[in-house]
Amino acid sequence: MPYMPITESMFLLAENREQPMHAGGLQLFIPREGQSATDLATEIFETFHSCPEIRPLFRKRPASPASLVGTLAWSFDDDIDVDYHVRRAALPRPGRIRELLRYVSLNHSALLDRNRPMWELHIIEGLDDGRVAVYTKIHHSLLDGVSALRLLENSLSPDPDDRSGTAWWDPALMRRRRNPRAPKSVSALERITGTAGQTLGAVGQVVGAPAAAAKIAWTAITDDDFAAPFVPAPKTILDVPIGSARRFAAQQWPRDRFDAIGNSLGITLNDVVVATCAGALRAYLIDQDALPDRPLIAALPVSMHGDSGREGNAVTAIMANLATDQPDPERRLDAVVASTRKAKQVIRGLPTLQALMFGAATFAPLALAPVPGFVRTTPPQFNLLISNVPGPSQPMYWNGARLDGCYPVSIAMHGQAMNITLTTTGDQVNFGIIGARKELPSLQRILTHLDSALEDLEKVAGVGG
Amino acid sequence: MPYMPITESMFLLAENREQPMHAGGLQLFIPREGQSATDLATEIFETFHSCPEIRPLFRKRPASPASLVGTLAWSFDDDIDVDYHVRRAALPRPGRIRELLRYVSLNHSALLDRNRPMWELHIIEGLDDGRVAVYTKIHHSLLDGVSALRLLENSLSPDPDDRSGTAWWDPALMRRRRNPRAPKSVSALERITGTAGQTLGAVGQVVGAPAAAAKIAWTAITDDDFAAPFVPAPKTILDVPIGSARRFAAQQWPRDRFDAIGNSLGITLNDVVVATCAGALRAYLIDQDALPDRPLIAALPVSMHGDSGREGNAVTAIMANLATDQPDPERRLDAVVASTRKAKQVIRGLPTLQALMFGAATFAPLALAPVPGFVRTTPPQFNLLISNVPGPSQPMYWNGARLDGCYPVSIAMHGQAMNITLTTTGDQVNFGIIGARKELPSLQRILTHLDSALEDLEKVAGVGG
Repeated sequence: MPYMPITESMFLLAENREQPMHAGGLQLFIPREGQSATDLATEIFETFHSCPEIRPLFRKRPASPASLVGTLAWSFDDDIDVDYHVRRAALPRPGRIRELLRYVSLNHSALLDRNRPMWELHIIEGLDDGRVAVYTKIHHSLLDGVSALRLLENSLSPDPDDRSGTAWWDPALMRRRRNPRAPKSVSALERITGTAGQTLGAVGQVVGAPAAAAKIAWTAITDDDFAAPFVPAPKTILDVPIGSARRFAAQQWPRDRFDAIGNSLGITLNDVVVATCAGALRAYLIDQDALPDRPLIAALPVSMHGDSGREGNAVTAIMANLATDQPDPERRLDAVVASTRKAKQVIRGLPTLQALMFGAATFAPLALAPVPGFVRTTPPQFNLLISNVPGPSQPMYWNGARLDGCYPVSIAMHGQAMNITLTTTGDQVNFGIIGARKELPSLQRILTHLDSALEDLEKVAGVGG
Repeated sequence: MPYMPITESMFLLAENREQPMHAGGLQLFIPREGQSATDLATEIFETFHSCPEIRPLFRKRPASPASLVGTLAWSFDDDIDVDYHVRRAALPRPGRIRELLRYVSLNHSALLDRNRPMWELHIIEGLDDGRVAVYTKIHHSLLDGVSALRLLENSLSPDPDDRSGTAWWDPALMRRRRNPRAPKSVSALERITGTAGQTLGAVGQVVGAPAAAAKIAWTAITDDDFAAPFVPAPKTILDVPIGSARRFAAQQWPRDRFDAIGNSLGITLNDVVVATCAGALRAYLIDQDALPDRPLIAALPVSMHGDSGREGNAVTAIMANLATDQPDPERRLDAVVASTRKAKQVIRGLPTLQALMFGAATFAPLALAPVPGFVRTTPPQFNLLISNVPGPSQPMYWNGARLDGCYPVSIAMHGQAMNITLTTTGDQVNFGIIGARKELPSLQRILTHLDSALEDLEKVAGVGG
């Protein structure tokens, strides 16, 4: 019975009915020529259902689900109730994206069963555009966002004629040749250290994971320079105790638009993304009559995954000043870029293990968040997480069905009522925004604000429409 | 801020992720002539959605959802997020009853949000037989099963041409004339006292409520005769700690078949129902190679509702020996009838208030069920609850759509892995069986066993087939 490292158990310890600790993904597939949506949904369902073997990762569960006070260990189930984990669903009419996002919003609010491996996969038909959606839900103690996306990527093929599609948990996938876009042999951290802020190609520089849906405790590291570059985060409507209901918003934009801005200004795609979020958040907070005087602080998770092929949780984070107090888009962008450059320099000075330790220390207060009053009385260390999880860089297919969208569905928690996670797939940037439903009204408006913020940055860079 | 009586707060205190304390109902409606299922679903959705006023019962929520340790009180929301509470859903193909029960199974596993009024209503289309299903989920701290069914009944009309259908929470319903089949002015308890075991018409005699999904502590009443008639309940696969996943099975049988047996043998409909369950449980336990030597003990909740029109929780229970050790259906039936007669005599000796107190005392150990080890080490006081909630006795309609089935969806809990609740509507007896999914394999087989057990009783009575 293997014991859990704290990077896994913390997600079980911190979980309660108001802050489920599972993350997810929403993938959209276009049926291949001549195939109906129902055909594709049936094909996925039957292929996944009949997969003869299940990888240990998808068979492990907490050994003592009822008592989480003592030592935590994993156990492995031999007999998996696939009928429970893999579900078919249909959207009510008219089957717009709105109904799909609503389905995800409502399902993402529900806790996973701890008495079995903590994952679910929903195959959803009924979209009026003929696509089929796959919504997955995986407990964060099992997997972080980077690992989850790698799993997905490994199950897809760049070849539209490849018909060897199988379930994501098929052990055969691990024996297959890695996809061409698999991470190189340097870790994300090393890549940041070497190339931070310099090349546009390094989308993976500030990669992240819903994993890091955590409150970073600057107080845990009092005698160093980390905190120095940052003013304290303001208290906002994002830093409140939350209820269990969620709202999910998602949209994709062409990657070209972000790249054009980055190229023109000599900044990274990630800087453009963070600045876009900064503009959207400012507009949303103005909508809600809740813009703080001081700028929002975002935590940007950094994956520590190398090419070891190991899955699990390996994440730390850097901080960014979102300059939401700044009405001018150009000045706001400058402040964001200056802030992430400083933060990267700090991490660059740390050896890998120390950087990981830093990450672990920052997660410690997570376990205190469920304590009544903790969130309300402690000042926030940052206001939200913005994660960028790189996906496949070319069009990918599952049995000839093209992946047409891939949205992360992350974690909101006490003191972190909103989370923005995005993933790049082919030529698209896919944003997934999860928020506490009651505490953040009209969350879907953030999509319009993201669009406007991107247009503002295009004007600053002198590119685009 | 009104404080909660223990009969309400206990359902909040005892709740955890493995034993959600909400009950529900599944209603099936046949669209009226010329109306499609989608038309009816849309009509229900729009009518419910646009109801201008919401009764206080549907606006109340725990005042301090995050901290349930102290005193519990209700607060009332003025602004209800109806879009959250009222949901449209569609079944995946082929849209059989199987897919519907699966939908309910999966949704019934999820906790309700405590930060808003604790109820949901799902309007489900996509059934291949053209009916529309309405699945409701209401926290037990708000309402017991009898009250819930009365609410439904009040919203329906015996007149197929009546088009005044409105939302269940419309305050206008309270001002309407009561339905002809509303309970008479004597309480169920008084009716039991006066007529126990004598008339067939007294379907309401042993009525119940998922309300009483509770462990009855005989130890709490040590110095009286209550326990005397009963041997201790055996330890079975029903008396185990459970996971959060559920399975729901449901089916209806013509009421005539139960009445014919009762008439022939001079016993109540409720006795026939309990004996049918006894036969089915014996067969199910044999299937699972888990039949105990000693007979199962069932708790039969008794509603204390009179005609006061008050809603909420008012339930006590009597015990029945199910004689599952007895292979012969006739002898088993005799033992069941003898046991419920004895139990009714005991309750008859109590004044109403004392009977209520008895009920309250029996619920006390509920709060201990979530303590690790409690369920595993304490002997069960009974093995399951069997509730009979009387519904409307004539065909009922909502805006001309006929109610064609009305299945209770009750509560499973630690030590009570299965619950059988039934309701009589028109000429049907509707069984709803909820069970812990992992702990009770192949739960749906109980439906076949109920059918066989009913046939066995028909042979005993010399009626039917």
